[in-house]
Amino acid sequence: MRQSRLFGKTTKTIPRDIKAISHQLLYQGGFIRESAAGRYYFLPLGIKVRDKIIKIVEEEMNKAGAIKLITPVLHPIELWKNTQRTKSVGFELMKVKDREGNDFVLGGTAEEMIIDLVKKFNISYKDLPFNIYQFSQKFRDELRPRGGLLRVREFLMKDAYSFNLDEKDFKGEYQKMWKVYTKIFKRLGLETIVVESDNGYIGGDYCHEFVVESEVGESRFFISEDGKYAAHEDVAKFKKERKNLDEEEKRLEEVEAKRGKTMEDGVKLHRLPLWQQIKDVMFIDDKERFILAVIRGDFNVNETKLRNLIGVNNLRYADDEEIRKLGSEPGFISPVGINKKVIIVADDSLRTIKNAYGGANKKNRDLLNINIDRDYKPHFEGDIALAEEGFLSEQGSRLREGRGIEVGNIFQLGYYYSKKMNATFTDKDGKEKFYYMGCYGIGIDRTLATIIEKHHDKKGMVWPAPVAPYDVHLIEIRNQRDKTRGVAERVYNILQSLNIEVLYDDRDESAGVKFADSDLIGIPIRMVVSEKTIEKDSVEVKRRDEDKSRLIKIDEIEREMDKAIKD
Amino acid sequence: MRQSRLFGKTTKTIPRDIKAISHQLLYQGGFIRESAAGRYYFLPLGIKVRDKIIKIVEEEMNKAGAIKLITPVLHPIELWKNTQRTKSVGFELMKVKDREGNDFVLGGTAEEMIIDLVKKFNISYKDLPFNIYQFSQKFRDELRPRGGLLRVREFLMKDAYSFNLDEKDFKGEYQKMWKVYTKIFKRLGLETIVVESDNGYIGGDYCHEFVVESEVGESRFFISEDGKYAAHEDVAKFKKERKNLDEEEKRLEEVEAKRGKTMEDGVKLHRLPLWQQIKDVMFIDDKERFILAVIRGDFNVNETKLRNLIGVNNLRYADDEEIRKLGSEPGFISPVGINKKVIIVADDSLRTIKNAYGGANKKNRDLLNINIDRDYKPHFEGDIALAEEGFLSEQGSRLREGRGIEVGNIFQLGYYYSKKMNATFTDKDGKEKFYYMGCYGIGIDRTLATIIEKHHDKKGMVWPAPVAPYDVHLIEIRNQRDKTRGVAERVYNILQSLNIEVLYDDRDESAGVKFADSDLIGIPIRMVVSEKTIEKDSVEVKRRDEDKSRLIKIDEIEREMDKAIKD
Repeated sequence: MRQSRLFGKTTKTIPRDIKAISHQLLYQGGFIRESAAGRYYFLPLGIKVRDKIIKIVEEEMNKAGAIKLITPVLHPIELWKNTQRTKSVGFELMKVKDREGNDFVLGGTAEEMIIDLVKKFNISYKDLPFNIYQFSQKFRDELRPRGGLLRVREFLMKDAYSFNLDEKDFKGEYQKMWKVYTKIFKRLGLETIVVESDNGYIGGDYCHEFVVESEVGESRFFISEDGKYAAHEDVAKFKKERKNLDEEEKRLEEVEAKRGKTMEDGVKLHRLPLWQQIKDVMFIDDKERFILAVIRGDFNVNETKLRNLIGVNNLRYADDEEIRKLGSEPGFISPVGINKKVIIVADDSLRTIKNAYGGANKKNRDLLNINIDRDYKPHFEGDIALAEEGFLSEQGSRLREGRGIEVGNIFQLGYYYSKKMNATFTDKDGKEKFYYMGCYGIGIDRTLATIIEKHHDKKGMVWPAPVAPYDVHLIEIRNQRDKTRGVAERVYNILQSLNIEVLYDDRDESAGVKFADSDLIGIPIRMVVSEKTIEKDSVEVKRRDEDKSRLIKIDEIEREMDKAIKD
Repeated sequence: MRQSRLFGKTTKTIPRDIKAISHQLLYQGGFIRESAAGRYYFLPLGIKVRDKIIKIVEEEMNKAGAIKLITPVLHPIELWKNTQRTKSVGFELMKVKDREGNDFVLGGTAEEMIIDLVKKFNISYKDLPFNIYQFSQKFRDELRPRGGLLRVREFLMKDAYSFNLDEKDFKGEYQKMWKVYTKIFKRLGLETIVVESDNGYIGGDYCHEFVVESEVGESRFFISEDGKYAAHEDVAKFKKERKNLDEEEKRLEEVEAKRGKTMEDGVKLHRLPLWQQIKDVMFIDDKERFILAVIRGDFNVNETKLRNLIGVNNLRYADDEEIRKLGSEPGFISPVGINKKVIIVADDSLRTIKNAYGGANKKNRDLLNINIDRDYKPHFEGDIALAEEGFLSEQGSRLREGRGIEVGNIFQLGYYYSKKMNATFTDKDGKEKFYYMGCYGIGIDRTLATIIEKHHDKKGMVWPAPVAPYDVHLIEIRNQRDKTRGVAERVYNILQSLNIEVLYDDRDESAGVKFADSDLIGIPIRMVVSEKTIEKDSVEVKRRDEDKSRLIKIDEIEREMDKAIKD
């Protein structure tokens, strides 16, 4: 490709609202431009990289026995109603009506569509398992698109769906995809951490995110120092050590408590440890029910865990007035004697303490010696606690908080969709059985941005060879116009004849501009033809990720390039 | 690919509503399934073919110097308002609103988007010309989707847009794309006829459709016997021979005319030729204006030409009551003395006759010796006549009516969009000039169906090698299970090692089922391993488009396949 003919130009300007380095370099290098918020044009250099990522993902998926197909972008809304996802997805869902009044969803993920398709065939146990995937444009009406390609409203996704005989069969597939994903990201130049995560609106019992550690990422996770445990902040578990379980249960007592509303005020007043206090947080769910989360005072409530435990989609904090209307008092809420319509959800950390203290549902009154079961009975009980840096993993290794970009995810779906959509296969015994399912996603555009986040320097992008837009950036430094031009053209032809992808900077620009652009675009090998090099029948070759350059004879390009590309 | 692992199955059933042979075979062969009306799933075999078509189109576009990029699927509606296309496209346009209330169009074509993108760069005459293209999912809310992939509401399109210095520069590009398209379709196994056509809502002055002649097509066109002229019915021109121009103009005369309302009634009553009669057709446009089309009695009005001549998007026939309210009379309409608010549009055929006859805007009254200019003055005059089989081309060659499938089109856009969107480049003289543009589309999915329409027999599809889902269909006919299996696996490995794409029928099915499926799927070369062949260390090879088969030694597969694939 002659650079003079390439559509899209480099620029030194960076619009003010561009923060992430990948966004900045993609903009400056002429790889992308914004259309509307969170929607991007891919320019020729951008699409070259995207196509290479697609090819690698496709190769590895095929090797793993997955099969490519494609579904329409518009999904009949009836399918999404079948699985109640029109509700759970919320505002991210985009809908469109056709001329006949039929409603469609703009595909965000395609579980319903894929199952709809599979149901059109008589599938027997002999046909199982299978894993089918597609590359297709996805739509999510994100509240806040940001970071260029890091969080967008429209993007290309590789989404795969596995159909398995049973849980055991599925687990093999899940492990296989785990390995395939690790390999794919490695080929793309990305080291991933696999973290347990929340399934969001996808459904199913467990799932894992593939995260590339980065300060610009939005995935907060915890990883244990022994490396054996990694989980998203939303679901991270930790060891809740037993405190004073050997104490005897004392008599419940109400005392005066002229104090402020914070936990610290309680500690000061009663001179008891923070962990012995009960923390009470009042929420209201989307059915206007009051939900009281109670937890050990030294922990915080994790809303995602809370929502999952009680099975609701949305929660908001109750305000002071709403708390008073219930007959309680902000800062003095207690599960003991709370209004009967309140649903009490207890963290299991309350089993690690005895004789707790906390509010009495009245202003300036506290209770001492509160004990679970005896003094209050939770409607739900489980893990609703938020992990924090320094806590221990359940195996006792210290947790470190990390931050990263989620580039892929794998989900166990189990029978979640197949039961809702009545999707079955004929088993050996002739009976119809539900599919046991999984799904597996890779955000192609976000992956592209992530590669830059991890592979750049002060001068620009430094593409790993497998995803570089071109293999070689050939630059003509024009002193004696005719001479250098002829040699550059010859080198261009040699490289093309070797099936090497070359971007050939034949523009009428200075050496300074050409070198700066070359560093910005970040093609792995730079090859310069100048007056100086042609005197020695040579070209100057430099790797983008190294400083030293060397001369190689034009006649030896073939042999040398073979080596250089393999390095 | 092992057929036992292929997702999608063949079937003998054909749903009742499936008419077109391509639709039937794609359904039976397990290439596609319908999601909603006009929206299709592509199964693995279908996507394989589609990918091969994409690759060929991409190769040829790149060779022609066009550059790939991609725009978002959702287009900000403001862009379409700039060019007034939200009105001209009509019901085919699908719209969607995001969470912030912004309206978007689901892309049907991308002129506005591409220009929006180009405007983001400072382009000078040195950067011109360029031709940028994409493959992207397109949406058109077609009134009646039909014929499987022949007319759909959602489809993959290759759309290219050229930006040129001026008309001369553009014409070179247009000619180039004409040649490129012809070559692309040839590589895909399709002979195309290039017909002049109407630009619909795309805009511009002229355009051509690439049509593959076929009874199931919706494009009606005329082609002259000398092959020098081909045009879509909507725009086809023909020779309007001079009739009685040597007559003197006689005095206009109103006579009694107790007759029916048809043209034939007029001929019978006055005993004058049909061509001498004036045909009057009253329309109402979308601004409720009355439009009277007048034409020589032996011709019919072409509504597309009429709309284009007067520049309106929609026309409907006036009903009897509306005609009477105007002070005229159905069957007796005349441009002479018609209500002044009527816009008269005359076909240029009225210049080929003198002393015409026709109605007098009163029941049972006719006028004789009507002459244009003297008796009525048209507001618009031009070619609004419908071509018919047997008419002569302007060069005098007989027109034949043809029918075909429009697989591609090329459009001159000129300054249509660049002026509306104020898109300019800096010319040599430092002045800003509007781009002279063209656009070029290929419907990938319809092309796929068209290939089948042209390449099938009673038994199924007969894929041209370049677009076949696989190169070889390897079939194991299992008599002595262990023996044939081992040899088949060996042949499968040999073929794969030669980079030949093989579909290997390893299923537990009878020879009859396997052969029938193989003919249905239509892979170019069938290779059979059976008890009979293994006795001779051979496989039986047969081309899908031939009846005879032959044995070749397994050791000679490499050499033979090289030959077979090249044939």
